[in-house]
Amino acid sequence: MSHYQRHVFFCINDRGPDSDRPSCNRCGSAAIRDYAKKRIKDLGLSGAGKIRVNQAGCLDRCEQGPVCVVYPEGTWYTYVDESDVDEIIESHLVGGVPVERLEI
Amino acid sequence: MSHYQRHVFFCINDRGPDSDRPSCNRCGSAAIRDYAKKRIKDLGLSGAGKIRVNQAGCLDRCEQGPVCVVYPEGTWYTYVDESDVDEIIESHLVGGVPVERLEI
Repeated sequence: MSHYQRHVFFCINDRGPDSDRPSCNRCGSAAIRDYAKKRIKDLGLSGAGKIRVNQAGCLDRCEQGPVCVVYPEGTWYTYVDESDVDEIIESHLVGGVPVERLEI
Repeated sequence: MSHYQRHVFFCINDRGPDSDRPSCNRCGSAAIRDYAKKRIKDLGLSGAGKIRVNQAGCLDRCEQGPVCVVYPEGTWYTYVDESDVDEIIESHLVGGVPVERLEI
């Protein structure tokens, strides 16, 4: 196993309101990243050998965003709100079962 | 295979010069990320099915930094300069052979 059992990256790129291209933080992805990070910590799941949540720059799947990716599986998700993130945490990060309905 | 064959994340966290804890960008990691991103693009290695280089927030291995991680392998590296990054690109990202001397 690598340093973390599962490592999640949320794209928080923001092209600003005047761009003609979408970007994940236009959908509030930075706040969702904060939520996921706190939830993992509150559940006692953070740290070496466990789970890490990070922000990342543009993951270049803008049209399908907001997106996050879970490694080492390389599972890509889109999400709408905190309840989607809760489902990814409980099913995939903890239980090891990807959330098919959110996969892109 | 996931969306990218290999996905590299460089920690560019910066606690500022007054912190008593190290942080990767105190060693210039953002500039190294820029270098890696450009090098991958110049080599024609960027895009879906190929290689993606991203910045990330604190990867929480500060004392061993500056660090980057390569997924899906979950290989963690430290590096000093552009030549180290060139070696990671040529040996690991292109050739699939991790650079043991830089692994943490």
